[in-house]
Order: sequence, then C-alpha cells, then structure tokens
Amino acid sequence: MTKIKVYSNILKANDNIAQRNRKLFKDNKVYTINLMSSPGSGKTSLLEKTIALLKDEVKMAVLVGDLQTTNDAQRIEQYGIPVVQINTDGACHLDANMVESTLPSFNFREIELFIIENIGNLVCPADFDLGEEDRVIMVSVPEGDDKPIKYPVMFYQAKLLLINKIDLLPYTNFDMNRIKKDALKINPRMRILEISCYTGEGIVYWINWLKEQMKNKFTN
Amino acid sequence: MTKIKVYSNILKANDNIAQRNRKLFKDNKVYTINLMSSPGSGKTSLLEKTIALLKDEVKMAVLVGDLQTTNDAQRIEQYGIPVVQINTDGACHLDANMVESTLPSFNFREIELFIIENIGNLVCPADFDLGEEDRVIMVSVPEGDDKPIKYPVMFYQAKLLLINKIDLLPYTNFDMNRIKKDALKINPRMRILEISCYTGEGIVYWINWLKEQMKNKFTN
Repeated sequence: MTKIKVYSNILKANDNIAQRNRKLFKDNKVYTINLMSSPGSGKTSLLEKTIALLKDEVKMAVLVGDLQTTNDAQRIEQYGIPVVQINTDGACHLDANMVESTLPSFNFREIELFIIENIGNLVCPADFDLGEEDRVIMVSVPEGDDKPIKYPVMFYQAKLLLINKIDLLPYTNFDMNRIKKDALKINPRMRILEISCYTGEGIVYWINWLKEQMKNKFTN
Repeated sequence: MTKIKVYSNILKANDNIAQRNRKLFKDNKVYTINLMSSPGSGKTSLLEKTIALLKDEVKMAVLVGDLQTTNDAQRIEQYGIPVVQINTDGACHLDANMVESTLPSFNFREIELFIIENIGNLVCPADFDLGEEDRVIMVSVPEGDDKPIKYPVMFYQAKLLLINKIDLLPYTNFDMNRIKKDALKINPRMRILEISCYTGEGIVYWINWLKEQMKNKFTN
C-alpha cells in the first residue's frame, strides 16, 4: 500500500514537470517524440538513418538516455546536430525532471524536430510522460512476435510501431501477421511500419510519417 | 533523497525474504538459477531445450515471470515438469516476496534444479536478490555487442553469460571478441558460452555447465 502511494506521488510530480516541458515544446513549435524499445532493437541506428536523411530539410536535435556510457551520443554527434546525453546511473527510464534539466542546453527556436531516445526497456519508460507529443515504439524481428501481448502498456500508448530488422525475417520464425493483429487489438489507431535500419528498407515510410506529423501539427 | 531512502528500504526488506528463500533451497539441496535477459533474447526457448534434454536425468521445476500473459508457462507446461507463472501486472522485475509466495506450490524434496525466468528487462531485475544460487544472463546476437558496457550491473553479478542466436551471426555486424572482452572487463570470473536455441548449436555446453554446477554444489 505504501509502495503504491509513493509511486503514485512520484508519477504525479513527474506529470507536472512533463506539462512544463510540453508547453515549452509547443511554444517553440517543436515536434517531440519519445522513442522506446528493448535494449538493442535499433533506436540509435534509426536515429543515425533519420538524421542523415532529414538534417538538410528539418532542424533536428536529439536527447539520448543511457545507464552509463556516452556511446550513443558519440554515434549521433558525428552527424553535426545538437545532441545531449543523460546518464541515469542505473535508473531504468527517463523521467520529466531529467529531461527538463537538459533543456537549457538546446536552442529550441532553432529546432523543429526533437527526438528523445529513452532507456532500452519495454516496461518502466511507459509510466513516465516526458512532455513529448507522440510516442514511438520499436520492436525488432529477432525479439519475437509476442511482444505486444507481453508488454501491452507500451503499445497502448504509442502512435506508431516500427518493426525493425526485417532483413532477418528469412532466418527467424517471426509471424508478421500475428504481431500486427495483436498490436492493433491493444491499440487499433496505431500505425505500423516495417523497416530495416541495416538495409534501409522501409525507412522512407518512417521519414514520410515524421514529415506528415510535423505538417499536421503546425499547419492547423 | 526521500526516493533513495524508500528504495533502499524496499531492497533491504527484499534481501531478508531472499535469505529465507535461499535457506529453503539449500535445506532441500535445490540448485536455483535466476535467468535474466532483454525481452526476446530467448529465455523461454532455452528453458524448452534444457527441459527436453535434462528432464529424464534431473528433477526440474520452473518459475516464470511475466507482466501479463501465461504464454511462457504454457510453452513449458507441455514438457510435463512443474511450472508456476507469476504475473507482475506491469511490474518490471521479480522480487523475493513474489517468489516466496509461489514456493508452497512446489515440492522441493522432489526438485534438484529450479530455474526462475525473470521479466525481460536488462535493468531492474539486477537489484533484486530472489534467493537464487547463481545468476545467468543471456544476450542475443541481434541485440548488439554493446550490451555489457551499457548495462554493466547485470553482467557484474552473473556467473554465466549465454550469447544466444549465434545462427544470426552471418547477417549482423556483431563483434564476438568485443562483447567477450567488455564482459570480462566487468566480471573477469564470468563464464561465456555461445549458443543457438534455434539450431541447438552449443546447447550441450550449457547443459554440461549446469551439471557441473550441481555436482560441485552437492558433493562438497
């Protein structure tokens, strides 16, 4: 009982800060995504592809969460866009407070698209609103087609599901119809795209989706 | 500050219960493993292979943790060994109390090997002692070779690292030397085995490792 109360207080405090973050993004017309997946599904690879394809057209910045290293931020830094790394020192998710503390490092008047790469974890990040506009969840083919029914909260809240590593489909028994059916049962309005960050297949649909969101957001 | 105190109290309470579980396992000469990995690394597939190969020789039982479904337990049940499922209803790890609550369902006088399949998560389960004898961590090839440096706590505590899905090595840029080097830097005494639950390659070494542990434990 006590545990639950502590946790609900933590979540309430988090939501208040998330609202402040959200207002700042909105005031500056920044479209913000919270990108979540298991460890090793390909979040950083997706960011690399996205930056390479979009950075001349869209002003981007990235916030990278990790438990310990700065490897992911280093991978992104070489593309020449603003990137900040949060090291959670063992914590299993980003929260709104961590995100808020990094915001002065960015000049949001010069940013149109802000992507937050969460900690690799299919459970805990789902509980913490960061102030993002939309959530994107990524699952990779070798993880198996049973992820939506086993981790439903993540899927319930996402606007888009990216199924990555489709280049490995011939070498696994992944059932594409099954995962789509299960995911849509949890969240019928979710869009689903099949991609491979390794071969580049399908990435264009993800880029188009991003542009579509940004257009809808700021022309209404 | 308050948050940290609450967490350390939770962990202390957990450790007390874990000690009770450990005593029960020891008194009954049950060798207990806490099996941990990301979602979809292949924990349940490993259990299926292990049971099929060992069940006529070793008396086994399995405890399966999952957020929601009973799919994993159903997969294991068909092999005819005792299996209990814990649904954490969204919680990101098993704790000693959850494990203790299931123990009356097992007849430990008739069990020599007890495997606890933890929630798919490379972060939170590391903090919670369940009363196990040894921890085994599994990483799969498509997750990437950077997992030890990004999630060091898990690796620091494990006795064995299983690198699964080596059948996918030809289709990825996974660096086997790098992951082994990084893992051994964190934990020089950890054993590392390469396996494929899909093709069966290397599984015999895992089975031999299990037998060796059980022999060493109960003949001294």
